[in-house]
Amino acid sequence: MSASSSFSTCRVHGAASAPNRELHSNYSSFRQSLLGRLISQSRVFSNVKLICWERRSGVRRQAFDVGDKPSFFVGNKFQFDDVIEAQQFDRDILNAIFEVTREMEKVEKNSPGSQILKGFLMATLFYEPSTRTRLSFESAMKRLGGEVLTTENAREFSSAAKGETLEDTIRTVEGYSDIIVMRHFESGAARRAAATASIPVINAGDGPGQHPTQALLDVYTIEREIGKLDGIKVGLVGDLANGRTVRSLAYLLSKYQDVKIYFVSPEVVKMKDDIKDFLTSKGVEWEESDDLMEVASKCDVVYQTRIQRERFGERIDLYEAARGNYIVDRAVLDVMQKHAVVMHPLPRLDEITVDVDGDPRAAYFRQAKNGLYIRMALLKLLLVGW
Amino acid sequence: MSASSSFSTCRVHGAASAPNRELHSNYSSFRQSLLGRLISQSRVFSNVKLICWERRSGVRRQAFDVGDKPSFFVGNKFQFDDVIEAQQFDRDILNAIFEVTREMEKVEKNSPGSQILKGFLMATLFYEPSTRTRLSFESAMKRLGGEVLTTENAREFSSAAKGETLEDTIRTVEGYSDIIVMRHFESGAARRAAATASIPVINAGDGPGQHPTQALLDVYTIEREIGKLDGIKVGLVGDLANGRTVRSLAYLLSKYQDVKIYFVSPEVVKMKDDIKDFLTSKGVEWEESDDLMEVASKCDVVYQTRIQRERFGERIDLYEAARGNYIVDRAVLDVMQKHAVVMHPLPRLDEITVDVDGDPRAAYFRQAKNGLYIRMALLKLLLVGW
Amino acid sequence: MSASSSFSTCRVHGAASAPNRELHSNYSSFRQSLLGRLISQSRVFSNVKLICWERRSGVRRQAFDVGDKPSFFVGNKFQFDDVIEAQQFDRDILNAIFEVTREMEKVEKNSPGSQILKGFLMATLFYEPSTRTRLSFESAMKRLGGEVLTTENAREFSSAAKGETLEDTIRTVEGYSDIIVMRHFESGAARRAAATASIPVINAGDGPGQHPTQALLDVYTIEREIGKLDGIKVGLVGDLANGRTVRSLAYLLSKYQDVKIYFVSPEVVKMKDDIKDFLTSKGVEWEESDDLMEVASKCDVVYQTRIQRERFGERIDLYEAARGNYIVDRAVLDVMQKHAVVMHPLPRLDEITVDVDGDPRAAYFRQAKNGLYIRMALLKLLLVGW
Repeated sequence: MSASSSFSTCRVHGAASAPNRELHSNYSSFRQSLLGRLISQSRVFSNVKLICWERRSGVRRQAFDVGDKPSFFVGNKFQFDDVIEAQQFDRDILNAIFEVTREMEKVEKNSPGSQILKGFLMATLFYEPSTRTRLSFESAMKRLGGEVLTTENAREFSSAAKGETLEDTIRTVEGYSDIIVMRHFESGAARRAAATASIPVINAGDGPGQHPTQALLDVYTIEREIGKLDGIKVGLVGDLANGRTVRSLAYLLSKYQDVKIYFVSPEVVKMKDDIKDFLTSKGVEWEESDDLMEVASKCDVVYQTRIQRERFGERIDLYEAARGNYIVDRAVLDVMQKHAVVMHPLPRLDEITVDVDGDPRAAYFRQAKNGLYIRMALLKLLLVGW
Repeated sequence: MSASSSFSTCRVHGAASAPNRELHSNYSSFRQSLLGRLISQSRVFSNVKLICWERRSGVRRQAFDVGDKPSFFVGNKFQFDDVIEAQQFDRDILNAIFEVTREMEKVEKNSPGSQILKGFLMATLFYEPSTRTRLSFESAMKRLGGEVLTTENAREFSSAAKGETLEDTIRTVEGYSDIIVMRHFESGAARRAAATASIPVINAGDGPGQHPTQALLDVYTIEREIGKLDGIKVGLVGDLANGRTVRSLAYLLSKYQDVKIYFVSPEVVKMKDDIKDFLTSKGVEWEESDDLMEVASKCDVVYQTRIQRERFGERIDLYEAARGNYIVDRAVLDVMQKHAVVMHPLPRLDEITVDVDGDPRAAYFRQAKNGLYIRMALLKLLLVGW
Repeated sequence: MSASSSFSTCRVHGAASAPNRELHSNYSSFRQSLLGRLISQSRVFSNVKLICWERRSGVRRQAFDVGDKPSFFVGNKFQFDDVIEAQQFDRDILNAIFEVTREMEKVEKNSPGSQILKGFLMATLFYEPSTRTRLSFESAMKRLGGEVLTTENAREFSSAAKGETLEDTIRTVEGYSDIIVMRHFESGAARRAAATASIPVINAGDGPGQHPTQALLDVYTIEREIGKLDGIKVGLVGDLANGRTVRSLAYLLSKYQDVKIYFVSPEVVKMKDDIKDFLTSKGVEWEESDDLMEVASKCDVVYQTRIQRERFGERIDLYEAARGNYIVDRAVLDVMQKHAVVMHPLPRLDEITVDVDGDPRAAYFRQAKNGLYIRMALLKLLLVGW
């Protein structure tokens, strides 16, 4: 969301508009515990725009306030205008988002026909197909009573023949909707879109760049399954060089105390030094291992990923050899602790055998479902606030 | 719908949830006439799962009951969890479904903005495009106040590059929706999906396999147009070897009394022996004819289908000759009885001439519309019960 | 919309159905000023069908009436069943539509969750992709509380393999929806669809033919930006030979008084004689110029369009030369009057430089947004009347 078109004089608006008020009353005690954090929050993300903005309903809100209301939730406004990258979030914001996410679980289960986002319209602007991510966002919007405009072939907008810029497309689409969820093939596209748009933008993956809602749902799933994030032991397994998922997860885990990370991967696709250096600088303990069984026996979470054959070029022998060592099967489950879980960002091929699926510690489909709740939470926060 | 995840202790829940109750009061007398049929019904389809299940709203229902309520409708629950093949249905169930279908006609005409399925979300998971069928299902869901997630490019889910199994896809999609309508290119795919899913699955055609909603709408149309099914005379015309439509229709007609079926087709695409043997075993009279005019003069229904040129290989001469004999035109109408009708599953090429369209006996567009009502009925039955 | 299936005896129905009444009260004074115009209106468009029609809700309406109610709005019914071409509309109808369009601006801004079209279902039947136009129509429908069935690959319906006629497709789709918005690659397709359909059809562009909603939004934008249409001076710039946009705009401007039109284009893509002759016959002053700066200094509106390279064949040198002369940049803005605006149908390449975007006189994104309001107005008018 760009600020340029929304500066304006403000009048105080103490609560969200009436039809969207249902969830807010639960937060009053929660707000108290977060009193006074706003100023530090606002430094987290350099693009944060704590200014007045005008919703399409014409209601103006105020982001700062004085007096006894907790500044974290001033005017109920979420402190980000857009969700572009995992680095936006520190642990206080993550905790607050996860609190809303748990509310969303209840809404989905108990309130068919929720009207929290009634009257809001989300545009899914997908420049490359990703059915799983798209359906998850569209389900999230509809579970909250919102509506959706779908564009799976958004490349047409910017086809060579027509040659429109991303910025021009955004300026058109923002006229038709209240929030844009964008998937793009170019790193940085989401940030460009957000800089242009006068409505919120959520990055649903931009090429090799960021996929922040995946990172959030991964951390949320660990907390939901294990019950904590401080002191957690996580084994990241598979292709650690190319997977943006494991890189973002390692980044976010660094925000918690006493975390231990194990990297288990073939030599060719080892975790890169930038993340290792970052973890070291944050005091996060990590080690590399080629023994999946040993790591699995120690970890709270075995986070498996797919090893892509094409990364090995013509050395198919290396690929086959590597894969064989890092498959999560019954034998791995047998050494894992009772409370530990297996996660995977999906789709899964044979790096987790299907006989694992029936074990209660197989968390990957619950993890996919958590993606729905995280996206419900973010849509609610960006459109109607806390 | 798989049963595995839904076994649970039950509490009796006498009626559907309040907002969905509008249609139910009309059924009390109807229910009486169907008292006591449940046990025979449950033998029809070996996969029938008469167990407690938990809706996403958290309301539990009981499928069996004791006391004075008719067991057919116990707890209002439809006795199938999924709609996979025409063979699921016997004539009592067909009649009951058609009764609901007639209600749906009234809902569509008189209740714009019906809320019967408000809060429910249908995923259309189409592995091959079929716009007509998809629009019909999506219209059905929306006419009842429900919402839709559309996937026309579902093959992407299971692309060679990613290689996800159908089962994994279903486990993801079931987390985002309340019912899955699936079109697939492989016979048996719908059954696999239903065995995996914890939510209802409707087969919208699986390759050369089944297309049960088409079969249901065909039988419904005959009853709606002619006023009866017992004693009906039906001429099946065109490609009888390859059309799953005519095969399913012949199968379902065998459930009625004193039915007579005429097969009118070129030699190359004659009805296969399996169906003929089945009809004979059920005591259904049938005969083959190459005289469309004579058959048309005797029948209540002339069911025309498209003859596909590719079935004739290089013998284009045979194809052209065959087609010429079996076109429904004004001359055919002239010999047909006043009450008789022409049906066609559509799309139609020139096997019915356009000058037939204006005749009241041209029933094929009404037949297409009946597909909407049948799908409304099935969605209602699977999601909220009788 | 075809009349054939909707002739019937009528009963007078004084107002739209209750849930859709919210906007109507504002029009009573407006109606008075338009009293008695119906008869001339009905001559505008030879296909106009001023007959009773039956909505899917079963409510019958009467288009003519006697007594003291203004015939223009008799029974609240819009006088067109379909929107097929710009020529349907004369200036009184345009003014009346624009009045509704201004109401729609208020609805979009102030009434999230409007229910004006609740219970109505629009089918977007697109035989060629046009994401911008499709999103605009779908947003319009959803902003008014209506629902949408989307078909972006409608060519499949009529694929060579299947060979269904457009008429048959329309007969099927009209059974699933309440209004059809169609984009087609063949000129005249929209008229054929409207002649078949028993529900309203809106032409969203048919090949080189018409794109009437673009023409309406262009005229609406001029009035909205400049405050008048009589006496307006408009410079049409770029490819005037092939752009249906500028041709339709010139046509509609001829309905206003004292209009002056400047044509500014490379020799190869000059405005054709048919439009020039038409303007002359209507007494509209026009002149051709190759001096964009001089024209820009005189005009109220500079309407820029994209010059398509392929029109120049192998004479790339001519193309490059021509383009350089007709770019709207800061220098052009500098000579334009303070109240004047730059318009463009979008997408824009480099025929308007991006440094123009920040100037308040850059009206092209507001123009795109007006497309939403125009389409909201037309959907409302066709479905529930004035």
